[in-house]
Amino acid sequence: MARPIITLTTDYGTGDHLVGVMKGVILKLNPEARIVDITHDVMPFDILDAALVIGQVYNNFPPKTIHVVVVDPGVGSQRRPILVTGDQHYYVAPDNGVLSMVYEREPKVTVRHINAEHYFLNPMSNTFHGRDVFAPVAAWLSKNWQTPSFGDEVTDYVRFSMPKPKVAGNTIKGVVLKVDNFGNLITNLTPEDVPQVVGGGKFKITVGSREIDKLSQTYVHGAPGEVLAVIGSSGFVEIAVNKGHAGKSLGLQRGAEVMVTLG
Amino acid sequence: MARPIITLTTDYGTGDHLVGVMKGVILKLNPEARIVDITHDVMPFDILDAALVIGQVYNNFPPKTIHVVVVDPGVGSQRRPILVTGDQHYYVAPDNGVLSMVYEREPKVTVRHINAEHYFLNPMSNTFHGRDVFAPVAAWLSKNWQTPSFGDEVTDYVRFSMPKPKVAGNTIKGVVLKVDNFGNLITNLTPEDVPQVVGGGKFKITVGSREIDKLSQTYVHGAPGEVLAVIGSSGFVEIAVNKGHAGKSLGLQRGAEVMVTLG
Amino acid sequence: MARPIITLTTDYGTGDHLVGVMKGVILKLNPEARIVDITHDVMPFDILDAALVIGQVYNNFPPKTIHVVVVDPGVGSQRRPILVTGDQHYYVAPDNGVLSMVYEREPKVTVRHINAEHYFLNPMSNTFHGRDVFAPVAAWLSKNWQTPSFGDEVTDYVRFSMPKPKVAGNTIKGVVLKVDNFGNLITNLTPEDVPQVVGGGKFKITVGSREIDKLSQTYVHGAPGEVLAVIGSSGFVEIAVNKGHAGKSLGLQRGAEVMVTLG
Repeated sequence: MARPIITLTTDYGTGDHLVGVMKGVILKLNPEARIVDITHDVMPFDILDAALVIGQVYNNFPPKTIHVVVVDPGVGSQRRPILVTGDQHYYVAPDNGVLSMVYEREPKVTVRHINAEHYFLNPMSNTFHGRDVFAPVAAWLSKNWQTPSFGDEVTDYVRFSMPKPKVAGNTIKGVVLKVDNFGNLITNLTPEDVPQVVGGGKFKITVGSREIDKLSQTYVHGAPGEVLAVIGSSGFVEIAVNKGHAGKSLGLQRGAEVMVTLG
Repeated sequence: MARPIITLTTDYGTGDHLVGVMKGVILKLNPEARIVDITHDVMPFDILDAALVIGQVYNNFPPKTIHVVVVDPGVGSQRRPILVTGDQHYYVAPDNGVLSMVYEREPKVTVRHINAEHYFLNPMSNTFHGRDVFAPVAAWLSKNWQTPSFGDEVTDYVRFSMPKPKVAGNTIKGVVLKVDNFGNLITNLTPEDVPQVVGGGKFKITVGSREIDKLSQTYVHGAPGEVLAVIGSSGFVEIAVNKGHAGKSLGLQRGAEVMVTLG
Repeated sequence: MARPIITLTTDYGTGDHLVGVMKGVILKLNPEARIVDITHDVMPFDILDAALVIGQVYNNFPPKTIHVVVVDPGVGSQRRPILVTGDQHYYVAPDNGVLSMVYEREPKVTVRHINAEHYFLNPMSNTFHGRDVFAPVAAWLSKNWQTPSFGDEVTDYVRFSMPKPKVAGNTIKGVVLKVDNFGNLITNLTPEDVPQVVGGGKFKITVGSREIDKLSQTYVHGAPGEVLAVIGSSGFVEIAVNKGHAGKSLGLQRGAEVMVTLG
């Protein structure tokens, strides 16, 4: 049998001891586990940013992968730890909406409130549940695969709607969800939201002070410095600058408006 | 038998080839080794920062884990490479104090001066002992587990005292050891240093221009922006800001004074 | 048989989902693969920076290691994906020169244009070949080791000359290839370029406004703040500052001139 895979997505950064501690806890409980870092550079406390990362990653992993997502501004409060079973993968996270994009994309999930405290480290801190709750739960799950043993099913789990485009007449307003490492602006517009853009219709995309009237196939179309719209690899419209950093060129950040005018 | 675990803690950063080279050297000598990154973002040349990281991490790993710590401003000078055997773990590092916190927490250690040069890469550089000394020693140790073969025991190893709080009358003065990724100020004050704070006594903590007169159980107590004191997950008093970055809010960095006044 | 090793060198950064996606794709196709991060912090789109990293790393890994290098400003354009067989290792990369330093150091390579599209993810994007082309090709190669099945050999692959020192009379002009994490200036001057410097001759190195007239054995020679020249661990002359950051001290970056005057 293949060794179990546990992925880690956190906002702990890579300069402290925190991530190393989680890895140690997992390996101490299950030396067979394979730990895969997704990122530890989620923006601190930023649940939407984390939801986007895990929502775009999870499905690329083999069946039975356990995804641990710890962006947890409410650590130590009443927010619940949850164990989620999706179609092919498992998720261990605080119940704060960080799995919202997974919930959107997965047809059916079972969500359990993890309350079987014998799986937690003892003593348990109020401030580092990555170490005391989420890492050991993932490690134990990777050994016994008995999800019911971790807690009862709940249906009132926290879930927010990923930001949706707003349609008004012949305009569709989207927002920038993220500026990636290359400066590309990842919007929340999908081909389904703007079929005319994908289908060869006439349109104008207004982003900051710039306008784009065609869809490019790649980042390298047009002249250097030209602002482009492409359908990115996760299925969102992206605004890019050929050989440049769109975020800096346009002076835009997450939350900026991207307006599509049809016709 | 479980495959051997080798952890890496360095100040090499993650933008250069150095960390990759160390991993290659280890895997070439022992393809069975599992390499776990703790951090490569220790502040360059900062022995105290590295001592704090490894001191807070090591004990979370399984027995027989080999911890390699390379923060080595004296590389190529007379400083010795050492192999340390603790209660359950091994440590490979330069003899410059980088293991001081491990020495404080481990009741008994055996420290060896690594001078068995046949374990080193040949030729050996004067500038990259991570590659030429520490990685190969860790890899060989993970194969033969024969610590005496690496060199003779020494007792005059370099060890500095971690900064200790200073008591004067009814005040205890601590310092900020580190500002973590969330901006929390990790101090050197432990519950043992300030039992009144933990035990419900009357006290005042002065940090920068702010005063705190109670201990919170979590980071999320109080109003947004409120300055809090909590006992952090590694057993130190931490100064935090609810939903904020204490370091920036208070304008404080490592070395800042934190004063507890009792009564 | 040892499990196959696949290394990753990219400019994707560590804050997005991209690296995690590549890892998932590899593990889904070959759960036995061991993935080793070299760096994901190559400067975006910077082929020379990537060429330097992989050129200094590859040979430290065990035979049969597969090195995946994705710095790919031309993704989606006509640039070809290639699979390179060197003396002991394999390389999967875009054909844009990113392997130029490998070509310089490896006596004989076989370069194949990867056109066996059944190895690619389907559908294939125009913007994320790390996921759709390079990761799956590496994973399949780590299973079948049949390089000819990936495509036909080509000889017109892209290759640039690494910047070479220029000799004029008794001066040799080099450049700074990289400023490393410690601030050391890695130049393109090797001992072969300046045998007099290594051999004890009389010389002067001019870098920015500073002059150096001797070669140091380590970074720790001289007074704090003194500017030093050493032969670094990859065989290049480096300019360092004892206990300091040469890049900041001298106000110099990649591309800065370093002039050696003999006699």
